[in-house]
Amino acid sequence: MEMNEHQIRRIDHAVCDWMLELRTRILNHFGQRLTVQTKTGRKDLVTNVDKENEKFYVEKIHGFDPQAKILGEEGFGDQVNSLKGRLWIVDPIDGTMNFVKQHDHFAMMVGVYEDGEPVYGAIMDVMNNVIYHGGPQIGVFANGLAVPEPENLSLSDGLMGMSASLVVNDVSHMQAIEHAASGMRIYGSAGLDIIAVLAGENVGYISYLKPWDIAAGRALLEPLGLVVSTIDGNALDMLSSNLVLVATKQAQQDILKIVQG
Amino acid sequence: MEMNEHQIRRIDHAVCDWMLELRTRILNHFGQRLTVQTKTGRKDLVTNVDKENEKFYVEKIHGFDPQAKILGEEGFGDQVNSLKGRLWIVDPIDGTMNFVKQHDHFAMMVGVYEDGEPVYGAIMDVMNNVIYHGGPQIGVFANGLAVPEPENLSLSDGLMGMSASLVVNDVSHMQAIEHAASGMRIYGSAGLDIIAVLAGENVGYISYLKPWDIAAGRALLEPLGLVVSTIDGNALDMLSSNLVLVATKQAQQDILKIVQG
Repeated sequence: MEMNEHQIRRIDHAVCDWMLELRTRILNHFGQRLTVQTKTGRKDLVTNVDKENEKFYVEKIHGFDPQAKILGEEGFGDQVNSLKGRLWIVDPIDGTMNFVKQHDHFAMMVGVYEDGEPVYGAIMDVMNNVIYHGGPQIGVFANGLAVPEPENLSLSDGLMGMSASLVVNDVSHMQAIEHAASGMRIYGSAGLDIIAVLAGENVGYISYLKPWDIAAGRALLEPLGLVVSTIDGNALDMLSSNLVLVATKQAQQDILKIVQG
Repeated sequence: MEMNEHQIRRIDHAVCDWMLELRTRILNHFGQRLTVQTKTGRKDLVTNVDKENEKFYVEKIHGFDPQAKILGEEGFGDQVNSLKGRLWIVDPIDGTMNFVKQHDHFAMMVGVYEDGEPVYGAIMDVMNNVIYHGGPQIGVFANGLAVPEPENLSLSDGLMGMSASLVVNDVSHMQAIEHAASGMRIYGSAGLDIIAVLAGENVGYISYLKPWDIAAGRALLEPLGLVVSTIDGNALDMLSSNLVLVATKQAQQDILKIVQG
């Protein structure tokens, strides 16, 4: 059942091809009118493009890997209650608010898990046309070029990505973490925040994340010596929402000390 | 004394050439070790590149416009106590923290004023190799292409750029402004925040700014129907620090209502 390197490389080629095809479709959509709806509130948006993209991924994945289950943000995948077997986790547009308001600064993400363990991930920074892709067996690449392990910087030596509501409401000592870091950045896309950590631009990222916001990232972060946990340092529940901490090993330790008071 | 359109176009060509030349130098610097020093505190950095860039601009401006005064962030220009006559205002690296930590997401800015009024501005997003340039007489361009007037969106319809300390300390009802907007973004570079408003990606930006942080931006924003004021809606003092509000006309009105309670 467990996939070998060759099978993971086949997934890699397929996913990168799908992302490039969808990118062209997205650029064409900018000439047309988007259909924008709210989900849980006025700041939680979904568009016709999110839905069309997810249907595209679901169809492609079913053709490519018919036995696998699919968990998608917009609900076109399967009802998934267990991490047993192979699971594809899809975010068809990450940073939908940026997508709608800016036509920039959004991502697409696809993760593949086997019995709850990450085997493959891909995050596309759509407008910059860069895909971060790979996993524990095949390594991590940006458009095919190997990504070096980021330096193990401390919190005080680096910038932290965060989400606005955590900072405003000072959840889990977020303002003390901001104060201890070199600075805070808010990008509005989990995918772009994770890319910033992969690229060594930021030392960490903290946000409430759903499975599709972190599945691909975890498959890319851990092989580069970066750590993914809850804000308390525990393992993520990959089927549920978590207050997620992504960081260098050193910044994780620094942040856990602040969180634990 | 007042410059005509032809003279402003000459400035435009010169400034864009200088920025392109400096961009090449900056990219070469990334292969070498930066010398980083702190200024007013551990989050306020200056590097050898900031200083070398400013010396470059000062030399070029003196050669191009010998009678003019120069106000530069790093102090290599003149001691400027008056807005009389022609004044060049230079930020040699804007977003130095991003420059040092990310090697990305920083800007260069040059503004030209006559008797306190903006006549020309240029902001370069260095890593994206895009210059926003122009002014009230010649219009506003991005790498030579005319920039359209952004839609006059309300605060609730758009994203707001802010600086971290304003939000954390809830200065001037900043958290209520964040709540009323579609969302908040923190980029860490005044130049890139101003570009986001010029490009219609964000409806506004609020931050404590020095003259060199806003001089170029004001020359570009106002010709596009955008407004620049203090957070109370008053005119800026271009020789001092201000809590600056940049916005669409409608978002400015929405924000002033919140600020005035």
